[in-house]
Amino acid sequence: MPSRYLSFRCSVPWFILLLQALFLLRALFGSLAVGDIYSPSSLSSLYPEFQDVSHMVVFGFGFFLMVLRRYGFSSTGFNLLLVALGVQCSVLLEDVCFLPLLSCSLAKAVLSMAAVIISSGAVLGKANPVQLIVMTLVELIVFYVSRCINRAFLQVPEHLSLMHVHLFGAYFGLAVTSRFPEAPPALDKSRSTPKSELLSMLGSVFVWVLWPSFNSVLAGSKREAVLNTYLALAVSAVAAFMLSALTSRDGKFRTAHIHGAVLAGGVAISYTAPSIQHPCAAMMLGLLGSGTAVLGSHCLQRCFNPALKLQDTSGVHFTFGLPAVLGAVAAVVLRVVEKGIEKQWNNLSSLGYLIFVDVGAFCQTISTALVSGLITGLILNIKLLKAVHVSKYFDDQFYWEVSVKMIPHCLWGS
Amino acid sequence: MPSRYLSFRCSVPWFILLLQALFLLRALFGSLAVGDIYSPSSLSSLYPEFQDVSHMVVFGFGFFLMVLRRYGFSSTGFNLLLVALGVQCSVLLEDVCFLPLLSCSLAKAVLSMAAVIISSGAVLGKANPVQLIVMTLVELIVFYVSRCINRAFLQVPEHLSLMHVHLFGAYFGLAVTSRFPEAPPALDKSRSTPKSELLSMLGSVFVWVLWPSFNSVLAGSKREAVLNTYLALAVSAVAAFMLSALTSRDGKFRTAHIHGAVLAGGVAISYTAPSIQHPCAAMMLGLLGSGTAVLGSHCLQRCFNPALKLQDTSGVHFTFGLPAVLGAVAAVVLRVVEKGIEKQWNNLSSLGYLIFVDVGAFCQTISTALVSGLITGLILNIKLLKAVHVSKYFDDQFYWEVSVKMIPHCLWGS
Amino acid sequence: MPSRYLSFRCSVPWFILLLQALFLLRALFGSLAVGDIYSPSSLSSLYPEFQDVSHMVVFGFGFFLMVLRRYGFSSTGFNLLLVALGVQCSVLLEDVCFLPLLSCSLAKAVLSMAAVIISSGAVLGKANPVQLIVMTLVELIVFYVSRCINRAFLQVPEHLSLMHVHLFGAYFGLAVTSRFPEAPPALDKSRSTPKSELLSMLGSVFVWVLWPSFNSVLAGSKREAVLNTYLALAVSAVAAFMLSALTSRDGKFRTAHIHGAVLAGGVAISYTAPSIQHPCAAMMLGLLGSGTAVLGSHCLQRCFNPALKLQDTSGVHFTFGLPAVLGAVAAVVLRVVEKGIEKQWNNLSSLGYLIFVDVGAFCQTISTALVSGLITGLILNIKLLKAVHVSKYFDDQFYWEVSVKMIPHCLWGS
Repeated sequence: MPSRYLSFRCSVPWFILLLQALFLLRALFGSLAVGDIYSPSSLSSLYPEFQDVSHMVVFGFGFFLMVLRRYGFSSTGFNLLLVALGVQCSVLLEDVCFLPLLSCSLAKAVLSMAAVIISSGAVLGKANPVQLIVMTLVELIVFYVSRCINRAFLQVPEHLSLMHVHLFGAYFGLAVTSRFPEAPPALDKSRSTPKSELLSMLGSVFVWVLWPSFNSVLAGSKREAVLNTYLALAVSAVAAFMLSALTSRDGKFRTAHIHGAVLAGGVAISYTAPSIQHPCAAMMLGLLGSGTAVLGSHCLQRCFNPALKLQDTSGVHFTFGLPAVLGAVAAVVLRVVEKGIEKQWNNLSSLGYLIFVDVGAFCQTISTALVSGLITGLILNIKLLKAVHVSKYFDDQFYWEVSVKMIPHCLWGS
Repeated sequence: MPSRYLSFRCSVPWFILLLQALFLLRALFGSLAVGDIYSPSSLSSLYPEFQDVSHMVVFGFGFFLMVLRRYGFSSTGFNLLLVALGVQCSVLLEDVCFLPLLSCSLAKAVLSMAAVIISSGAVLGKANPVQLIVMTLVELIVFYVSRCINRAFLQVPEHLSLMHVHLFGAYFGLAVTSRFPEAPPALDKSRSTPKSELLSMLGSVFVWVLWPSFNSVLAGSKREAVLNTYLALAVSAVAAFMLSALTSRDGKFRTAHIHGAVLAGGVAISYTAPSIQHPCAAMMLGLLGSGTAVLGSHCLQRCFNPALKLQDTSGVHFTFGLPAVLGAVAAVVLRVVEKGIEKQWNNLSSLGYLIFVDVGAFCQTISTALVSGLITGLILNIKLLKAVHVSKYFDDQFYWEVSVKMIPHCLWGS
Repeated sequence: MPSRYLSFRCSVPWFILLLQALFLLRALFGSLAVGDIYSPSSLSSLYPEFQDVSHMVVFGFGFFLMVLRRYGFSSTGFNLLLVALGVQCSVLLEDVCFLPLLSCSLAKAVLSMAAVIISSGAVLGKANPVQLIVMTLVELIVFYVSRCINRAFLQVPEHLSLMHVHLFGAYFGLAVTSRFPEAPPALDKSRSTPKSELLSMLGSVFVWVLWPSFNSVLAGSKREAVLNTYLALAVSAVAAFMLSALTSRDGKFRTAHIHGAVLAGGVAISYTAPSIQHPCAAMMLGLLGSGTAVLGSHCLQRCFNPALKLQDTSGVHFTFGLPAVLGAVAAVVLRVVEKGIEKQWNNLSSLGYLIFVDVGAFCQTISTALVSGLITGLILNIKLLKAVHVSKYFDDQFYWEVSVKMIPHCLWGS
């Protein structure tokens, strides 16, 4: 029934209009003034880092996701649409919650959007725009609630609670994609071409360069955060090449590995970048992050994904999910070691409390992501939202009209 | 007579050499010292924003204009050439005028270049390099004079007078292009391919990300300018998708709309970004800007352009022209409402004066642009400049030689 | 014997692993703490410039080198690999040397990497990854030693000694490439296509925009450095178009010229950007730089390269080498004139000493580069490193595996 979405398509704009009108009304009757959106100190000094993060999320990730041969317009276009909607939603959300301790900020809104972009990578090519928008709104709200819980009950500082963005995004996305029907493996459109791989690798390098800004924009000790992230990324890139050559059949570098694993170091160090004191720890974390990504990609694609009938189009599980788990574990270990040395391993009960809090924040985030992701996946596949038929997956031509003069069915013909 | 330009081509470099020599002499005998080119405060703190603007104008717009299938080299290459010439011209121009109240600055020179780039978008593929260079020089001088008039007689502050750059550029370009012979609609080369559209959309996203820097680089209250521009752009992007789906035949997103309309919000808010106090107004302006662009594109292409025999290759009228008009009107309305509330609607004569000044600056700019654009268009089409024949429009191969080993006539063959 | 490298390929990852383990051990047992890697003042205020430089070296140069039609993955991928390895090596190197007067910094490490990237441009497509890695390590160490000599014996200030990076990189690369067997001129893969040229030109524009940050990041008087570099680049771009049209057969612009010559102004002014007081001098230097590049490209490709059997794949000799020589000469002349005017041409012996020091630093750098490059070239072609056979030059498919489903031998087939 390929016409299901077709007949539905005409109601897409009304849905977007409704949402935008709601946001406008919210802004109109909200107590929000422009001055409040930034905390006084935040933007003047943060602007270059903020621009880097914005560049990375809007341009870089859109570029990074251009991996499918017939899905370039949707990858970049829908990415922009989701960021534009999500940032408004985030900014207004913070206003709703009346939490006086929060100075809401544009930077946080853009950082949170990374979770949505990562999730949208997991369902890349399978969800229609309405499904993506619903997913964006649900995910932003749940992520916001999860951060509030972490902050209120577990005293996780604000900037660390935001660094759960990779963990949350990846597992939410995986849970959502598990509820979508699987594309047949023979589907020609799900392949990538050298051209699309090349663009995607350029996007990956673009994101790599801007990652230190992502990890340092809200951190207290910016210098340490930048340096540690840079070192972790460097080791991670080297390790990605090494492991890719080790694990591929004849010692070639596999683009799919490089593409994801060069970033894994940045994900793995996101929790600990501002606090690591010794460059060696940062480098080790980068190495482990990259290793997790490459080995994870092998295990997941051979055993885990087929068993669970998961189809993770752009590999967010091993690019963002597993390195984030590693990073969270490493954060606990590093903190315990540091506190332990400081107090000479006396006062073990306070250490136990530390572990409990950190592990608690991690478990709360991941379980919230999985449960809410599953529910969202079920919601997205109700009849009302007219899921795309499997045979129409991964195809721009279903959503885009390139130019008036062209015959639509040969969109990517040449 | 396709050989008209061919025989002329050999004199192109001498023309560029002459200009460059003039600029060098001007710099040599001018009173300009390096210290004067920046006002003391301007660059140390402004450097990141300046780099963003430079990146946007040189790389972003070059990328954005890569919309034609056989005109990629000229789009980026000539863009770089015009910026490189125009910035020198602007910097030296400010020195000539001996206006002591002006601290001339590199940032202003790069901002002014946006007008030229927008105009060159209107004649994209139709003008040869010499015509483009003549247009650049004339336009920069006229725009400079128009800004001086606004500042001297209508007391428009410096940074606002520069924000007329979109308005001026678009209408100047339209007036120029109206004097060029029209390309036959069957001309295959004027089409875009999915590949070129995709690159152009990436360029559009690139420009989108950097737009807040463009609107805030010279503004007094930088924080407000950034935030308002960001919100306006976000709403504008959402509205572009919504309206594109609403107005296209079967609910698809049309790349030509998205391409231009996502930026319309940034254009519309350029006058008022630093002064808007309520986010709702910024969002509303973004919505209206995007609406103007999409609806304008329909009306213009169906009624206005055929009637006037206008051919606006990359749609600068609806991308930059109409949203800038909307922005100028909104600026007047917002200022009147604000002043009116402040003085409780007494003292209406001072309100009238305010309206007179703002509307005056707007009318002066647009009429100067149209008149000077028409004259420039006539000058560009005199025999001396050897306009390109219509059948040779939109073709790189006429200007570029890709590599020594290739047979020239198959430049874009594959 | 195309299988020589094939059988060797499997040992590539072990080589990388060994290196990375060495770096990790070095970091573990080194006295380096995170705080030391930046000098206190360096990063907080420098971060935007540092990010620009990092963006330029990692993304920009990778993009810039995508000039060969079948070598896109290797151009960007190996660039990232080399930067990631080289930055670690540089940071750790500075720690080894125990020179207390040096505050080692990430920015310097990234700047030094430009030398390696330039050298790798000279052997683009001819060296296998192991050869490239060995070259990176040797070059970084020799460049570091050469800088130390300049600083210790010739009192060259730190930021100027780093600006020898173009000179060193270009001549080191040329000496290395002279030891590689020449590819047959009929080799189809060494050609560029319009697509690859276009990407490469976009990369060139990207690098152009970020160049002012490169020249100013470590300079004392940042304002002057930015302005002078910007003017030199602008003139250089204009002159590149002019000279390209003058020297090509029928007045067309040749992409190979534009590609390199627009950057030549930035290279030529790198030594003198912070100290030039009059914009005219900066502009003149840009003009001469561009002229050197375009004319050099003609002379070198007709006379010099065939005579010496040199094959400089991406033209680093005329893009970086000759303009850097020009810049070094100009720096001496400008300094002598300035000091001469200051002291009214008395005290000629101190002038002579100045000339001796500047010329000495230049000669030391260039001869170190040539000698060490030749030795490195000989080392790289020993049997142990299994040089790639000439028939396998310029081919991604030898190193990369795009996706599991594709038949490897049609990597760039479409």
